[in-house]
Amino acid sequence: MRTLSSVEGDLQRAVGRNLRAYRLERGLSQEDFADVLGVHRTYMGGLERGERNLTLRSLERIAEKLGVPPLELLRDDGK
Amino acid sequence: MRTLSSVEGDLQRAVGRNLRAYRLERGLSQEDFADVLGVHRTYMGGLERGERNLTLRSLERIAEKLGVPPLELLRDDGK
Repeated sequence: MRTLSSVEGDLQRAVGRNLRAYRLERGLSQEDFADVLGVHRTYMGGLERGERNLTLRSLERIAEKLGVPPLELLRDDGK
Repeated sequence: MRTLSSVEGDLQRAVGRNLRAYRLERGLSQEDFADVLGVHRTYMGGLERGERNLTLRSLERIAEKLGVPPLELLRDDGK
């Protein structure tokens, strides 16, 4: 668990891992999950790979579509 | 405490409140605190007012300058 030390990009990589975990829990393809989140399919891939430097509002919108608290998407617990 | 329900913009407003609290703890003016964070003074004011839709990497950079974990800046506990 990382708490005090962090590397720039850790947060967006955590979002990617968490989104991937949510998608797999639901048994969805990246394309179908993109539709759930209301984002473009190519953007979806970048999100999952942790390549997207999201804004806080984008994070909130995605979390709302998923029905989870935004901070859940930032958790770095291997979920 | 907000967990399941959230309103878009809550995260950036939490950042503003937390930054203001850190600044006051240190007894710094907004100008001096802007220098600590390496941001422009006018940007600093917008941050504290919760008006800036930060990216995750900006959040990480500011947290690093403060020496706190990035998620601390997003906490909504009235700090």
